[in-house]
Amino acid sequence: MSSKKNNLKFAIVGATGMVGTAFLNLLQERDYHPIEIRLFASDASAGKKIPYGDQLLPVQKLSEGCFDGLDIVFFSSGDDISKEWAPKAAKAGAFAIDNSAAFRMDPGTHLVVPEVNGDLLKGLKPQIIANPNCSTIQLVVVMDILQRNFGVNTIKVSSYQAVSGAGLAAQEELLSHTKAFMHGETLPAKEFVHPIVFNCIPHIGSFADNGFTSEENKIMQETRKILRLPKVRVSAFTVRVPVMNSHAETVWVTLDKNVSRDQITSVLKSAVGIVVQDDPKKSDYPMQNEVSGKDPVYVGRIHQDMDDPMTWLMWIVSDNIKKGAALNGLQIAEQIFDIN
Amino acid sequence: MSSKKNNLKFAIVGATGMVGTAFLNLLQERDYHPIEIRLFASDASAGKKIPYGDQLLPVQKLSEGCFDGLDIVFFSSGDDISKEWAPKAAKAGAFAIDNSAAFRMDPGTHLVVPEVNGDLLKGLKPQIIANPNCSTIQLVVVMDILQRNFGVNTIKVSSYQAVSGAGLAAQEELLSHTKAFMHGETLPAKEFVHPIVFNCIPHIGSFADNGFTSEENKIMQETRKILRLPKVRVSAFTVRVPVMNSHAETVWVTLDKNVSRDQITSVLKSAVGIVVQDDPKKSDYPMQNEVSGKDPVYVGRIHQDMDDPMTWLMWIVSDNIKKGAALNGLQIAEQIFDIN
Repeated sequence: MSSKKNNLKFAIVGATGMVGTAFLNLLQERDYHPIEIRLFASDASAGKKIPYGDQLLPVQKLSEGCFDGLDIVFFSSGDDISKEWAPKAAKAGAFAIDNSAAFRMDPGTHLVVPEVNGDLLKGLKPQIIANPNCSTIQLVVVMDILQRNFGVNTIKVSSYQAVSGAGLAAQEELLSHTKAFMHGETLPAKEFVHPIVFNCIPHIGSFADNGFTSEENKIMQETRKILRLPKVRVSAFTVRVPVMNSHAETVWVTLDKNVSRDQITSVLKSAVGIVVQDDPKKSDYPMQNEVSGKDPVYVGRIHQDMDDPMTWLMWIVSDNIKKGAALNGLQIAEQIFDIN
Repeated sequence: MSSKKNNLKFAIVGATGMVGTAFLNLLQERDYHPIEIRLFASDASAGKKIPYGDQLLPVQKLSEGCFDGLDIVFFSSGDDISKEWAPKAAKAGAFAIDNSAAFRMDPGTHLVVPEVNGDLLKGLKPQIIANPNCSTIQLVVVMDILQRNFGVNTIKVSSYQAVSGAGLAAQEELLSHTKAFMHGETLPAKEFVHPIVFNCIPHIGSFADNGFTSEENKIMQETRKILRLPKVRVSAFTVRVPVMNSHAETVWVTLDKNVSRDQITSVLKSAVGIVVQDDPKKSDYPMQNEVSGKDPVYVGRIHQDMDDPMTWLMWIVSDNIKKGAALNGLQIAEQIFDIN
């Protein structure tokens, strides 16, 4: 198996961004020795060199033919870049694993979380594979296990999303603005619409006419597509919180069956990619500061609604840059190329 | 009316705490000139002097007979102090307005938010009146208007609660620990169970066997009592966020009637104590940093669920120390003594 790990040719588009950097770090962390790694970024970053093991990899601009001969191109440069360049990567014979929202809801594009619907990746020719929204991924990893075992009827999710989801500059803004606040100064918000220092902002993405944000619409639509349950009820309320990294979610999920707490924790504990951390009387539940840097999706505070015994509350936390983006993308590649 | 404002004798138990201080500040802000204000606090604070207008008020220890001759005693020193001393204040002929949880669910004690069930205060003799939990107050102010106009069937609320709810030392912990973090240091959590710096903690109060926290149980039980709807479904999930002051809540409320968004905003706009701030496409919605220091309950992001037209989502924000505690207590006194 390890030979496959060392026989691949990768490219990363958006290599200097937060998710691109995480993807490159993951390749090292998971002991990949690719034949080639091509790094692409914006004009401003082109010419930089980024270390990988004992190599220094040059950052290049995108250009016609730049994907020739590659196996996997991971895109994390936003919708516009993906729209233009991901089809070219697929045409050149690579799997274009796209972390943008450009193709996620396209009926002809697979939207994949390997633990959930990785079966879709079997026997595929090179093409675009969409990597879901970060808040969606951690939600569906848990919801899928509940759906397979008990059936899921309704999901309500309220998010507590870290600034890293808005990129490196946003993370720097939280740090620098907090520092300024500590010195009695207030800096004008740039990366966020409003001050994020010691403040929550109920606004991620842009507002649609229906009153939901694009982030909320992504969670609702993508969850249905990934779970292959076009009629499951999903309602999302997303909020940015002054946390550096990892997203948390409070979830009410209404099941189709009457089950016990033990049945729920039991199926979640035996699932791939999930850690049940749930001993609240010992103050033990997942938290964003502890989950950051880790691979799995963590779930805790699993308890039954007092009025509706079919409804269960839980708290789901995961590193939005790892499982919520780069790791899920790499896992898609690993499933395609049968790498364990 | 103003003569009544100047003919009262007040006491504050817990006068040096965050809520006690806010109560004293509110008396000044609302131009009260009481005949007397007696301040009580723990042994550690006794002997201090606190300015009120051009007076310096001494802080005393509680002692037998210390409430004699008073009209209103505001308690904000925790459950144990209230359990012991609030009955003595009432026996001495004062209205004991109790901000602790000690008497809230006692069937013989009124639990009051003046805008909602202030009618209960009419013609009362001196007795204990319970002031609700902060997260409950801002929720019921909005839910009551919806209940009166359209009927409320189910409420789901996920909270984003500021550290000020845990007191002055907790607020100082967020500040000092953030400062330390900025210098690369980590201080051990004291006021919170876990680090609160750039982190959310899904744990406020203590855990019951049913998996809910005491804070969540307060919201669920108190909401039913205040709305006088013992069967309304309320499910709460509470989370501490690294915000200095004011609580925010994402709410799903299922109504008994099919109504339009205009009908909802219209009844909320005409309600006492509520500000509708809801123009999301202009990035206009309430936020904790802006609502802090203000009296009303703010509501925004009012929108209809996509799957269930009877369910509405909204974002409710209020200053947990003002309307969530001290202001609501003073408004109870104002209603009892018919002060406008």
